[in-house]
Amino acid sequence: MNIKDIIIKKKDKKELTKEEIKYVIDNYMNDNIKDYQMSSLLMAILLNGMTFDETYNLTNEMLNSGDRIDLSKIDGIKVDKHSTGGVGDKTSFVVLPLVAASGVKIAKMSGRGLGYTGGTIDKLESISGFKINLSEQEFIDQVNNINLALVSQSGNLVPADKKIYALRDVTGTTDSVPLIASSIMSKKLASGADKILLDVKVGKGAFMKNIDDARELAKTMVEIGKRFNKETVALLTNMDYPLGNTIGNGLEVEEAIEVLEGNGNKNFTNLCLLLSSYMVSMGKNISIDEAFDIVREKFDNKEGLKKLYEFVSYQGGDLKNIKKEENYISIISNKTGYINDIDTLYLSKLCNDLGAGRKKKEDVINYGVGVKLLKSINDKVNKDDEIMRVYTNKEIDYNEYLKTVIIGEEKKHDIKLVYEVIK
Amino acid sequence: MNIKDIIIKKKDKKELTKEEIKYVIDNYMNDNIKDYQMSSLLMAILLNGMTFDETYNLTNEMLNSGDRIDLSKIDGIKVDKHSTGGVGDKTSFVVLPLVAASGVKIAKMSGRGLGYTGGTIDKLESISGFKINLSEQEFIDQVNNINLALVSQSGNLVPADKKIYALRDVTGTTDSVPLIASSIMSKKLASGADKILLDVKVGKGAFMKNIDDARELAKTMVEIGKRFNKETVALLTNMDYPLGNTIGNGLEVEEAIEVLEGNGNKNFTNLCLLLSSYMVSMGKNISIDEAFDIVREKFDNKEGLKKLYEFVSYQGGDLKNIKKEENYISIISNKTGYINDIDTLYLSKLCNDLGAGRKKKEDVINYGVGVKLLKSINDKVNKDDEIMRVYTNKEIDYNEYLKTVIIGEEKKHDIKLVYEVIK
Repeated sequence: MNIKDIIIKKKDKKELTKEEIKYVIDNYMNDNIKDYQMSSLLMAILLNGMTFDETYNLTNEMLNSGDRIDLSKIDGIKVDKHSTGGVGDKTSFVVLPLVAASGVKIAKMSGRGLGYTGGTIDKLESISGFKINLSEQEFIDQVNNINLALVSQSGNLVPADKKIYALRDVTGTTDSVPLIASSIMSKKLASGADKILLDVKVGKGAFMKNIDDARELAKTMVEIGKRFNKETVALLTNMDYPLGNTIGNGLEVEEAIEVLEGNGNKNFTNLCLLLSSYMVSMGKNISIDEAFDIVREKFDNKEGLKKLYEFVSYQGGDLKNIKKEENYISIISNKTGYINDIDTLYLSKLCNDLGAGRKKKEDVINYGVGVKLLKSINDKVNKDDEIMRVYTNKEIDYNEYLKTVIIGEEKKHDIKLVYEVIK
Repeated sequence: MNIKDIIIKKKDKKELTKEEIKYVIDNYMNDNIKDYQMSSLLMAILLNGMTFDETYNLTNEMLNSGDRIDLSKIDGIKVDKHSTGGVGDKTSFVVLPLVAASGVKIAKMSGRGLGYTGGTIDKLESISGFKINLSEQEFIDQVNNINLALVSQSGNLVPADKKIYALRDVTGTTDSVPLIASSIMSKKLASGADKILLDVKVGKGAFMKNIDDARELAKTMVEIGKRFNKETVALLTNMDYPLGNTIGNGLEVEEAIEVLEGNGNKNFTNLCLLLSSYMVSMGKNISIDEAFDIVREKFDNKEGLKKLYEFVSYQGGDLKNIKKEENYISIISNKTGYINDIDTLYLSKLCNDLGAGRKKKEDVINYGVGVKLLKSINDKVNKDDEIMRVYTNKEIDYNEYLKTVIIGEEKKHDIKLVYEVIK
């Protein structure tokens, strides 16, 4: 077996065997296969695809490249959640407390940001004192005591994914369903939960721009989960507009509190309640309707909010002390009408320029910067209304922000939050 | 401009601009673009193709990466020849002396072997004393004096091709018309001849297995030549069977002498006369028929043979002293019938195992080893006839050689030597 023959086989659209995929992962990890050979194979996979068996075997070999978390010391069904990444995605800070308050245990590991803005762990670091690393014993004890712990990925989990992801990032080979599916699922499987809820984002602000690609990715991941005997459900959710009203690390944590207080963006709140219901349904083996009733109760009686405070303080954090830039620049509407569209991707790029995310792996995030929208999609806006606040102490190009909000004369159609559920 | 965007553009099947292709070559040569990015782009080119303009621009930028030979100090039209590579291909040693004897000047640079067996320069090194390197002045003087010089590629000709070729070789990205065409044509154009004859081999023993791929390659190269104002003609020739009766460096030089003596394999002799006629036709601006009459005369009156001796001795070589293994093992037919087929590629692989070619770039060739077929395709064979001699002092797996010659009860159809002429 040699890598050149394997590359040529995939170039010729033939199916790689389990042994060939194992050979690739093993030998890439011990440097017998070079980066320039791996990137050639990755491009052939991207362009010629993989069968489900190949994608399953790739996931399995990546999973076997490192350690797996053992959550057996935590009683009950552990449910994990993964979002494929969206702009302003702070769902975890709303959903996980609601699910934990509903009696389902969550022992979650998260990553840093790879897109324009920070990831879950970056956002947690905007909370003063929050410890993103716990010992294994602390992690397990915390989940047993309060149902929820959320830490940074640690140890030697799926090192093959780390190495391959870094290569894909610089070789134009990110955009591939089998490569994305195996990357996400190998990490989720290594994290040790019993069941997995996948939030697959679709739209202008997401990696998956159209529903067909998103559906294919979701179906592949759900099938992989099943093959590993882990119940896996995927929701295809709308990512044409920012999730909620804020983009930026500290701003997003602050918004999560507002949402759990009952004062959040309506669409975003509804999405969080729905995602929470799926997790509770899976964790308690009950119907979605029954689960929704429980979640709604925990939302209305503020037990979700309490759980957020409890879990953050358990990990040393102080929600009264979230990093946020004091200065902001108000963006003022220059016309009257309804918000028809928001250029979500460009807005997140502007936030990246402010320092809310990394351009290179080594960059340091500015936790306090970002934007807060004061109006949402479909809202009525009058000329001279304040529509956005840009939190920064740097000068900005005002018109670039203004033009991200498209105001038309008529209200547009209602927005669909969830397109499909795949299980 | 950055390489990641360029890779993604080609991945998305879009046409790269002249500036983007220049950026790729320039930055790959100065190491700003890494091997792992280049190989990803090469695989995207292989799978998604290139338009003619892209292939032309790639050729031009590769050509611009190094020096060009100036042949202006040689009077008259200089004609170059290139073969895409076949098993037992010693046409140059027959064709070039015939063309030079016919009054056309040839200042040719050749390479070493990249396939299973040695290249032209390797074969010349089997001649005792032969100098493969001449100074520029010696090279030009020799062509002016005796019409022919044949040296190893030297200086800084198309360094981009050297670097890209080495990468393609280990990343499964050799098999691409735009990459092959730009590689061959950039080298031919850098070598400074006025006109170019391309011998594109098609068949089981060639890189191009089918006529459609070979035609596409030939057409692309002919169009590139024209765009550079160099008359370029391509012949698609049969490479289902070994060219002539021998495979192996010294053995092939010896066979070239036999052919020019008039005692060679008939099909191979006819192919050489035809290739020579095309070169003479181009070099003298006369019809093929007129050219053929001249070549035939130089063949019959042995002036071609004399020219071979003259040019070899001019470069210090002694054709009486060609490296050849003394020992050989006779392969004996185990049945009576006609030779229906020869497993050309496998036979060349067996010769590679003997040491006739390199497995790795660093390998040292054994000039004396190889095989000599005593019977050709369609020949009658009796049981117990000697059909092949394997020159080696190592033990061989006798049956592996025996099974490369397929003997049937009936004679097969006649063989077509040349499928098409593209100009």
